[in-house]
Amino acid sequence: MAIPTQIKSDTNLLLEYREVRQQSLHICKPLQAEDFVVQPISDVSPPKWHLGHSTWFFENFILAEYYKNYKRFDERLNYFFNSYYESQGPRILRSNRGNITRPGVETILEYRHYVDEHMEQLLQTSLHQEVKDFIRIGLHHEQQHQELLITDIKYILGTNPFFPVYTKSEVGGRKSEIGPANWISISEGIYNIGYQDNGFCFDNELGVHKVFLHDFEIQNRLITNGEYLEFMQNGGYHHFEYWLSEGWEWAKQLEIKAPLYWYEKDSEWYHYTLNGLRQVNLNEPVTHISYFESDAYARWRGLRLPTEFEWEVACNYLHHDIPVNGNFMETEHYHPIAQQDEQDTQLLGNVWEWTGSAYLPYPNFPRLKGALGEYNGKFMVNQMVLRGGSCATPRSHIRPTYRNFFQTDKRWQFTGIRLAK
Amino acid sequence: MAIPTQIKSDTNLLLEYREVRQQSLHICKPLQAEDFVVQPISDVSPPKWHLGHSTWFFENFILAEYYKNYKRFDERLNYFFNSYYESQGPRILRSNRGNITRPGVETILEYRHYVDEHMEQLLQTSLHQEVKDFIRIGLHHEQQHQELLITDIKYILGTNPFFPVYTKSEVGGRKSEIGPANWISISEGIYNIGYQDNGFCFDNELGVHKVFLHDFEIQNRLITNGEYLEFMQNGGYHHFEYWLSEGWEWAKQLEIKAPLYWYEKDSEWYHYTLNGLRQVNLNEPVTHISYFESDAYARWRGLRLPTEFEWEVACNYLHHDIPVNGNFMETEHYHPIAQQDEQDTQLLGNVWEWTGSAYLPYPNFPRLKGALGEYNGKFMVNQMVLRGGSCATPRSHIRPTYRNFFQTDKRWQFTGIRLAK
Amino acid sequence: MAIPTQIKSDTNLLLEYREVRQQSLHICKPLQAEDFVVQPISDVSPPKWHLGHSTWFFENFILAEYYKNYKRFDERLNYFFNSYYESQGPRILRSNRGNITRPGVETILEYRHYVDEHMEQLLQTSLHQEVKDFIRIGLHHEQQHQELLITDIKYILGTNPFFPVYTKSEVGGRKSEIGPANWISISEGIYNIGYQDNGFCFDNELGVHKVFLHDFEIQNRLITNGEYLEFMQNGGYHHFEYWLSEGWEWAKQLEIKAPLYWYEKDSEWYHYTLNGLRQVNLNEPVTHISYFESDAYARWRGLRLPTEFEWEVACNYLHHDIPVNGNFMETEHYHPIAQQDEQDTQLLGNVWEWTGSAYLPYPNFPRLKGALGEYNGKFMVNQMVLRGGSCATPRSHIRPTYRNFFQTDKRWQFTGIRLAK
Amino acid sequence: MAIPTQIKSDTNLLLEYREVRQQSLHICKPLQAEDFVVQPISDVSPPKWHLGHSTWFFENFILAEYYKNYKRFDERLNYFFNSYYESQGPRILRSNRGNITRPGVETILEYRHYVDEHMEQLLQTSLHQEVKDFIRIGLHHEQQHQELLITDIKYILGTNPFFPVYTKSEVGGRKSEIGPANWISISEGIYNIGYQDNGFCFDNELGVHKVFLHDFEIQNRLITNGEYLEFMQNGGYHHFEYWLSEGWEWAKQLEIKAPLYWYEKDSEWYHYTLNGLRQVNLNEPVTHISYFESDAYARWRGLRLPTEFEWEVACNYLHHDIPVNGNFMETEHYHPIAQQDEQDTQLLGNVWEWTGSAYLPYPNFPRLKGALGEYNGKFMVNQMVLRGGSCATPRSHIRPTYRNFFQTDKRWQFTGIRLAK
Repeated sequence: MAIPTQIKSDTNLLLEYREVRQQSLHICKPLQAEDFVVQPISDVSPPKWHLGHSTWFFENFILAEYYKNYKRFDERLNYFFNSYYESQGPRILRSNRGNITRPGVETILEYRHYVDEHMEQLLQTSLHQEVKDFIRIGLHHEQQHQELLITDIKYILGTNPFFPVYTKSEVGGRKSEIGPANWISISEGIYNIGYQDNGFCFDNELGVHKVFLHDFEIQNRLITNGEYLEFMQNGGYHHFEYWLSEGWEWAKQLEIKAPLYWYEKDSEWYHYTLNGLRQVNLNEPVTHISYFESDAYARWRGLRLPTEFEWEVACNYLHHDIPVNGNFMETEHYHPIAQQDEQDTQLLGNVWEWTGSAYLPYPNFPRLKGALGEYNGKFMVNQMVLRGGSCATPRSHIRPTYRNFFQTDKRWQFTGIRLAK
Repeated sequence: MAIPTQIKSDTNLLLEYREVRQQSLHICKPLQAEDFVVQPISDVSPPKWHLGHSTWFFENFILAEYYKNYKRFDERLNYFFNSYYESQGPRILRSNRGNITRPGVETILEYRHYVDEHMEQLLQTSLHQEVKDFIRIGLHHEQQHQELLITDIKYILGTNPFFPVYTKSEVGGRKSEIGPANWISISEGIYNIGYQDNGFCFDNELGVHKVFLHDFEIQNRLITNGEYLEFMQNGGYHHFEYWLSEGWEWAKQLEIKAPLYWYEKDSEWYHYTLNGLRQVNLNEPVTHISYFESDAYARWRGLRLPTEFEWEVACNYLHHDIPVNGNFMETEHYHPIAQQDEQDTQLLGNVWEWTGSAYLPYPNFPRLKGALGEYNGKFMVNQMVLRGGSCATPRSHIRPTYRNFFQTDKRWQFTGIRLAK
Repeated sequence: MAIPTQIKSDTNLLLEYREVRQQSLHICKPLQAEDFVVQPISDVSPPKWHLGHSTWFFENFILAEYYKNYKRFDERLNYFFNSYYESQGPRILRSNRGNITRPGVETILEYRHYVDEHMEQLLQTSLHQEVKDFIRIGLHHEQQHQELLITDIKYILGTNPFFPVYTKSEVGGRKSEIGPANWISISEGIYNIGYQDNGFCFDNELGVHKVFLHDFEIQNRLITNGEYLEFMQNGGYHHFEYWLSEGWEWAKQLEIKAPLYWYEKDSEWYHYTLNGLRQVNLNEPVTHISYFESDAYARWRGLRLPTEFEWEVACNYLHHDIPVNGNFMETEHYHPIAQQDEQDTQLLGNVWEWTGSAYLPYPNFPRLKGALGEYNGKFMVNQMVLRGGSCATPRSHIRPTYRNFFQTDKRWQFTGIRLAK
Repeated sequence: MAIPTQIKSDTNLLLEYREVRQQSLHICKPLQAEDFVVQPISDVSPPKWHLGHSTWFFENFILAEYYKNYKRFDERLNYFFNSYYESQGPRILRSNRGNITRPGVETILEYRHYVDEHMEQLLQTSLHQEVKDFIRIGLHHEQQHQELLITDIKYILGTNPFFPVYTKSEVGGRKSEIGPANWISISEGIYNIGYQDNGFCFDNELGVHKVFLHDFEIQNRLITNGEYLEFMQNGGYHHFEYWLSEGWEWAKQLEIKAPLYWYEKDSEWYHYTLNGLRQVNLNEPVTHISYFESDAYARWRGLRLPTEFEWEVACNYLHHDIPVNGNFMETEHYHPIAQQDEQDTQLLGNVWEWTGSAYLPYPNFPRLKGALGEYNGKFMVNQMVLRGGSCATPRSHIRPTYRNFFQTDKRWQFTGIRLAK
């Protein structure tokens, strides 16, 4: 998470609060109590932890500071729900989150209810702009955890031998095979990068600055499962020459031979989706691949990934607004959808797109003070930037300037590929 | 688990079946759904796994074999609930048991119900002795898992920062300090070892044979918390000379400084019990210690642990029957109790007693055929024998000849110390 | 290693060959036979391996291809001395290099002699430009291994409790304390980056391209031991807020509290140098620090590391030639030297300078074909760029456009800090 | 190592000293300087370490105590050559022994010379019996390290892809195939176990005591390579039912499919011996196998390993003296030899024989005081007893009561199998 610094509008903060908070519960509706507890890999947090941690954020940073004589729901929860903030006291080892069965889901729902009641009271009083800004940070923070809830639930259910269905959702999708991608050309020049508007953004989008870009071309859609299967069938996972050395070691050691959630049965490829186990649709964008795989795929094609600057310039060039009918969390399909027509650039929504840019601070990146400042740039090393949001990202959470980032071996997020040259 | 070979009586097998099966559910009553799922360390299985696995045993080895046209509840459960039997097909990695949230507890209770209905029907028909014997193995197998249920639940709750109370139970216990232990003397001679009666026993108790014992003395009670604290306060954990080399490395690396579940607060020692967090009672037997600690304690005292043969001879010498008022699972105290008076030898119940004997086959140890034979002696290496049962052992499950065994670093069972010389 | 693509001059290739090959032996002169064998950490290769591998390069890529009827010295050496090239057959696991005692040093010196004789014969014939170019690559490759020889020997001797002296060398160095660094200002604009000359360069310097830089300032010298000690004495290693999250975990886990080779004795800091164990000289540049430490130091000062583009632009602005009196390998001091005067920018030689740039391909980065192409960009992920060369770099090997790269936790190279803002 | 407590004769101690000390150097004669340094696995110590450590034993426990005004060769060697004794100060981590190149072999030979000169002077004075006893312990200690020198050298050379020959030695060996083993019967009764003579023994042989043995039979020779190959060809390594559970996991994880040093080439089995790589001789005893493999082999045959008590009773029954023509270190063949005739029981020499007994203290096992007492019983857990000595054991070092011990997965010693029933 990074931190916003400029916040202007504050209309309807109470309504926004209700809506966002309600959405987290909505995501958890299909779960059984047992699903809320486990942490099959260190990256994946138990759903009940997400519900508690996003609540703790409001209790700890808002109510404890600004609600007079606030009495905490249970002092001991701090230890469990503090994710990261060294300044906020000791906390449970991340890898132990999945062993903690109490407090149970019921108690955490009570905790949410308790905090929400107090927050609603607070929101009906007159608040300083600073407090309102902090609350909005909390809501964006919760939206980030909504995306994680979806991907973590997918991991918990998708590595279960019973492949339980999370939600039934069918998308028509076009039946005809998708043709080759088109190339969009952008001319060389000096471009502005970073968030320059008046709304909300995170601090890693700030430090607006100029970059020089040479002429480049970028594809008008995402790489499909069909195209990725060609790579696999051409021995993509067996030819050293396509891979970064570290990626090759990674794939060998973990015996990676396909995207995460893919299973071969009788020479047909299936994959687990939140709609259940399904045959792989060749028209849909490939997803759940690492940076290593994205880079190997690009090299195999003789092409490359775009830089994050190229991506942002292309996105600004093509879009003026976030598409209303984009494939975001609100669609509740929770899976990428095939390109609809040639105007459908798939730049926002569907899958996060790996770029060829390392996650580093922009020139003049601002440093925040205080507890929230702890996140400030702390992760700006050994990660790559992803752009564009996914089918698990809330629509109101994404922007063309939004910088997401993950280590090069991560695959449990909805990640995919777009090529450049 | 080991395997019985001689089975005589079969009266009331149906009643026995009901009672044992009911008991497993009774143990789980205080749990919330979340508690059933996790596996905080590899040794500890999720409670729902114990419930399912002991049921699978009846389905797989009894119903599938002897119930005509039996239809399995769900074929896929085999993969999840097969613990060990290579001959029964592929199975989940032990260390992954705690990541499997589905089937949930509800489904597993339905599974138990389904199997119980079919078992009850089967038990009301006329059965060959062999089938009855197999069913009785299944019941003893389930009793072993009842003890594991209790110790695993203790681990799950006891490593939770909230220290939840599993059951309220107060035992009066004597207030006055316990005096020094007395010594019981046994003369040298040739003794018979192993199970020679007509009831049920496991195969590792068979191969009845003679051993020669020199004169020895054994204490008339278990080592208390008070005595163990003396060891701690005399630097027991800091003096290399008391420890086996491997034990010293173990304690250094894991920073072991007290029994499992012990916590120091303001210079007072507390420990987690299934009755909640309590101050350590100096009169109660020390428990949750490894073989390494038991051996170091004995060496510090200038004494030693008894061999399993000395223990068995002493037990046969002192007891003719399993004590009716012993501190077993049925007491539902789930914690060792201080010696009541000098006649209370604490040999059966309370805590498993580490012996100085490695777990090895008796001369003429029999080999079983078939799937159950897989367990046969498979674990007879790098483990030490424990004797006597604990406060978590069903009373009908223990015998003076019963051989339990664990690796030398294990501490999550109710384990304790008795000294010899 | 990266690969040159443009090679023009080829005068005196035979003399060059002799000189470079001789230099490797010269570096090993102070060693005992035992020093040639070991590999205390995976990064550090045994000196005899460097001698053999650089020889194998000529045998395998030059003689086997271009020397008619060439008979290999010993076919089996391929397995041992192939470092990396998948296309050149199976090879020993990198981490096992230090367990292979045979062939011994004597045999490897015979191997060098054998290959050199054949190479000298070949070099006295008329060769195609392509072959000459390949030979020159081999020489630059050997120079890279000369630097590694020095740093690996330092590690082998410097982690020996006897701290053996490798070479006696005293540098006067100025006695007076160095004043604050000055700032050099560079104006915003579009700059060319990459190698544009006619000599030798590696492929990662190619793909000459334009970047836009905002105004920036860069210090006129390296950070000194004295300045770094201030950081340490101000709790630099104990304050989370200065560190990247991953760096903090790294320092905690490995208990890092000072640069590599530093030892505290009676409140004084000493460090191992190739001249023996010496008290830390406050005027000398700090070295043997990781990217994590460099970044934390910069954050503590409220400043930052320069990007590799800023560094290159500053270096081109200040220097027209490689300084003849720079502190390179040829100086045989093998340790950084204090800034001589304010004109001494220390940009070339002394220590490699961590930049804030991730190691990534330049736009239009060329791809090579064939076995040498394997190195091509294989390492362009999760590493940071270092610039400027060190006291262990051959003078003829460095250029302002030279891009070195290491993972963010590496410390055994001569690495240091320069700040920007 | 264990510690002797009864020492009677002391004739010719000086001559004995010279002979034993000389023997260690003799073993190292075929080595190159590089061979002395490495430690390819933690079990294997560098040869120069053995030479130094056995010397340090005399310096530290004899000269420093009993030679007036003794000046140590180099104080700093204590850190490097203290193997284990906590009471003798800090020491290097065992796993780091192979990274320490200085002091080199030359210096260690000087160290030996220096200590030997002082020891010879001391031995020419009149000494208390206690001192003589300690010196003799030192000699037996050095003999133990002579066996380790041989097995460690074998590992260092035998895992080198060049398979260097350590010594040329051909043993005629009989050509005709060996017939089935005969069975020796021993009657049930009470037997004395442990060392009861007047010579030297280690403390783990003391605590002479009685055991009751049932009737048993034991084979009159070791298991051959031919017999072991039958096991392999019958899928011995692939059938779970022959294996201890822990042994099965071990073999699966490390992909163990044959004894250590065996290699299959064109459907023929070869193995590395100190005489070089040779085809496996079917008549020779199988060696370099773990306890797990020995136990699996026995189970496959439907037989078992003897206990250490059965072995000792059989050995005492069959042998009155150590065979002069046995295959010990002095033979300098360094490899087991086929049974010569039916009188050749192979009980002493050739290979250490795994027994079915865990390594535990005898009743009344004595405890030693002082630094040497540290070894006392420190290793009596999770190891199995081996009996009989090997082709690398000095003849004067072995006895029928000698108890060797190793963990159940160790294979780099000369270990083999004899069966009982």
